[in-house]
Amino acid sequence: MRAKAPKESLTVLTDLVLPGETNYLDNLFGGELLARMDRACSIAARRHSRRIVVTASVNHVAFTKSVPVGSVVTVEAKVSRAFKSSMEVYVDVWIEDRQSGEKTKVNEGIYTFVAVDETGKPVPIAQIKPETELEKKRYDGALRRKQLSLVLASKLDPKDATELKALFVGE
Amino acid sequence: MRAKAPKESLTVLTDLVLPGETNYLDNLFGGELLARMDRACSIAARRHSRRIVVTASVNHVAFTKSVPVGSVVTVEAKVSRAFKSSMEVYVDVWIEDRQSGEKTKVNEGIYTFVAVDETGKPVPIAQIKPETELEKKRYDGALRRKQLSLVLASKLDPKDATELKALFVGE
Amino acid sequence: MRAKAPKESLTVLTDLVLPGETNYLDNLFGGELLARMDRACSIAARRHSRRIVVTASVNHVAFTKSVPVGSVVTVEAKVSRAFKSSMEVYVDVWIEDRQSGEKTKVNEGIYTFVAVDETGKPVPIAQIKPETELEKKRYDGALRRKQLSLVLASKLDPKDATELKALFVGE
Amino acid sequence: MRAKAPKESLTVLTDLVLPGETNYLDNLFGGELLARMDRACSIAARRHSRRIVVTASVNHVAFTKSVPVGSVVTVEAKVSRAFKSSMEVYVDVWIEDRQSGEKTKVNEGIYTFVAVDETGKPVPIAQIKPETELEKKRYDGALRRKQLSLVLASKLDPKDATELKALFVGE
Amino acid sequence: MRAKAPKESLTVLTDLVLPGETNYLDNLFGGELLARMDRACSIAARRHSRRIVVTASVNHVAFTKSVPVGSVVTVEAKVSRAFKSSMEVYVDVWIEDRQSGEKTKVNEGIYTFVAVDETGKPVPIAQIKPETELEKKRYDGALRRKQLSLVLASKLDPKDATELKALFVGE
Amino acid sequence: MRAKAPKESLTVLTDLVLPGETNYLDNLFGGELLARMDRACSIAARRHSRRIVVTASVNHVAFTKSVPVGSVVTVEAKVSRAFKSSMEVYVDVWIEDRQSGEKTKVNEGIYTFVAVDETGKPVPIAQIKPETELEKKRYDGALRRKQLSLVLASKLDPKDATELKALFVGE
Repeated sequence: MRAKAPKESLTVLTDLVLPGETNYLDNLFGGELLARMDRACSIAARRHSRRIVVTASVNHVAFTKSVPVGSVVTVEAKVSRAFKSSMEVYVDVWIEDRQSGEKTKVNEGIYTFVAVDETGKPVPIAQIKPETELEKKRYDGALRRKQLSLVLASKLDPKDATELKALFVGE
Repeated sequence: MRAKAPKESLTVLTDLVLPGETNYLDNLFGGELLARMDRACSIAARRHSRRIVVTASVNHVAFTKSVPVGSVVTVEAKVSRAFKSSMEVYVDVWIEDRQSGEKTKVNEGIYTFVAVDETGKPVPIAQIKPETELEKKRYDGALRRKQLSLVLASKLDPKDATELKALFVGE
Repeated sequence: MRAKAPKESLTVLTDLVLPGETNYLDNLFGGELLARMDRACSIAARRHSRRIVVTASVNHVAFTKSVPVGSVVTVEAKVSRAFKSSMEVYVDVWIEDRQSGEKTKVNEGIYTFVAVDETGKPVPIAQIKPETELEKKRYDGALRRKQLSLVLASKLDPKDATELKALFVGE
Repeated sequence: MRAKAPKESLTVLTDLVLPGETNYLDNLFGGELLARMDRACSIAARRHSRRIVVTASVNHVAFTKSVPVGSVVTVEAKVSRAFKSSMEVYVDVWIEDRQSGEKTKVNEGIYTFVAVDETGKPVPIAQIKPETELEKKRYDGALRRKQLSLVLASKLDPKDATELKALFVGE
Repeated sequence: MRAKAPKESLTVLTDLVLPGETNYLDNLFGGELLARMDRACSIAARRHSRRIVVTASVNHVAFTKSVPVGSVVTVEAKVSRAFKSSMEVYVDVWIEDRQSGEKTKVNEGIYTFVAVDETGKPVPIAQIKPETELEKKRYDGALRRKQLSLVLASKLDPKDATELKALFVGE
Repeated sequence: MRAKAPKESLTVLTDLVLPGETNYLDNLFGGELLARMDRACSIAARRHSRRIVVTASVNHVAFTKSVPVGSVVTVEAKVSRAFKSSMEVYVDVWIEDRQSGEKTKVNEGIYTFVAVDETGKPVPIAQIKPETELEKKRYDGALRRKQLSLVLASKLDPKDATELKALFVGE
């Protein structure tokens, strides 16, 4: 399979924040945003792999700014790195000011999906060839994050997580 | 403020998986489960802090088994450690076999919430005093995970993440 | 089949009241609460019978207090008595004050479910052995309520409803 | 206030059963139907009283037939009797066969609503003057059902429930 | 097949506007109302044809007045004309003032549906015999609107749209 | 106000078709798609005008292909022409084949929105300067469609609809 660029899986989900999706402070519920991000990421993973995909893990999502009711929210997801049958998907979330049109980043997240066949069995997928600086940085970080996931799930001995170890020890 | 036990914030959300929440393989959508987990965790955080709480981050959620339509899903959340105004909430997800009644763990996740006042400003909260072995283990791991979050968000130099460093280097 | 205790079917559904579920006075819609109660009761009936269950009737639900938006609502359901293939399920609903943590009962209801096989045909189920004082009281009342249902549905002559008759006539 | 006929509050809610509202057997969930019935009844109560109304109780709902996905469901609600500030609303539910057009009754229910002002305080309402045979029968039964509610809620001694007593004792 | 009157397909969908369906100005979202109208029209088309029906086009919907949260909205749909296997459905939308009971028209729309068999293939349907003045006017206009649709979709040369041409040219 | 290009208001809403949004044939409900299209168009209108916008009319939506459950649906909306305070928004809808990645157009629609201030009063907006061939064609057609709307609403005499008249008469 030919390696693909991240932009080939770019998925944009722009939608409004409706009153029924908000919390006590009239901001979008964290859980609702997580669900939107998951749907956008799953489409990006599907576009990259051209397979059925299922969520394997949410590696990190930071909520840095609240999203008020009535906001226009843009969720942008792209596959950042592919492994054997799993993919890391990076997702950025923006809101925009109605009057100035200015965009503000409110959130970013990292999801992992697995490509499966009709019976739910993992299948091999195309690799990723990053193009932009940001794509390369995210591609490089993906291996470190995969090791971290395995360590956190006690499936990898921290001593063997060479990428991660380097981060904390340096040379 | 008196320190509280994790069990004081225990929140149980048992509900069915309806057909409208499922994906192509007739399993519960990852995003829908993330939203349920977020709601249960936010109630646990609120019960612990007795304050308005907002989602700060999702640190890790692993989807180990799929959840078929019609399942009874039990989401159990408890505050695992409190910091100045933020709390780590651990959430476990179970399904049960209808005929045997046997429970299977499908998922676990770690969320962070911040307690705020009516204007959205962070406020101090009670500390956690873990009781069971599992609660103590999760309490101890929370500081490591907090450092990891700060490192991932580039707010802490990996060299200063003493708890994390020990994990990868050993003495 | 061995008789079971009501606590074996205990089902707890704790969830938030979202803005999209409220009426003109910003309180939870009666109909939304009825739907949540029905789901919790159906899980309790399923846990008791280990069968597919369908709602047969709602015998009585009293709304004694309104439930404001943002409330944490706890729905607790337990099978109170089993008949041949039908079960009475008692459900209690609580809200809690965020600042004091104090619980207030807002609602209680009585639902009847029937256990069926994959074709929708009723099947025999285990009986109930009540343990606490409240469970015994509800168990005793269940036969009276069943007769009442039959009388209201014109399937039983009031003269033959011996349990009910005693209530109004005394000896 | 002039007494009104039940037909003045007639409310018809015809809608489809969507796949997201169904249970394991592909039939409409009991809870979903209860919510639709509650909305139709609340509109009937509002049309009669021209006031804000809140659900006070669900007195009895019997599910006699299941409602398959894709059905056209017609919910018809009319105020059957008015008391000081509360109203009994009777609701009938029908499905129709697509090919023959034949209607089948699947369900009926009795709800009670209270008319309130903007602060939630009960207010007096118009009385009901039944016209058809069925309306008269339901009007007459309403007092008996109100006594029954009070007895079940332990707010009325069964010995004083004269209407009910007559039903079980005869002359 | 015997021709049918429009009233034989009359479909009434009365329901509340819930807070989760509103926009920034606390009025019902245009899209939500379009969805309700589509469901009512599809039931009318199904009642007329006694077949599975699918939406073919929305020919015109004008939003003349906004619909505030808490409104009672009545959607009334009737088949206005039938062609070979397609039907035009006219839908009128009303709100009513709670205190006076007065009705105000907020919206009307014209939808086209096609009757199909289980495989999605178009099937012939009964014709319409209009009765009232309004039904006759809508019946006559339907042919003009059908030509207009074909012209807009570039499936008919404007020169051959005799009904439409007469409208703009006169004799 | 400076005239803007259509691409400045481009809004992309890519999302999945969930099982709860489908009809009897397991295809996306017409009404659900209308609601998604309305939300995308309202964001495009808001991006162009930087004002609160409300749906004024749906001028034409043709459903040419059905959208099966599990599809990835891309809704793309752009303002095609601006008038004094109203805007015409053109929306195209695509699905893509999972295995080949091939896109198929399923639907297109034309919506009109009005820009309003906080009190709901219409306000003046920027004009449109079309760039591509398709944008120019849609820009030119917009005046004709506006006249058509006015004629259909009986607010313009067909004899005075000069743009439209030319279409049917020629020279």
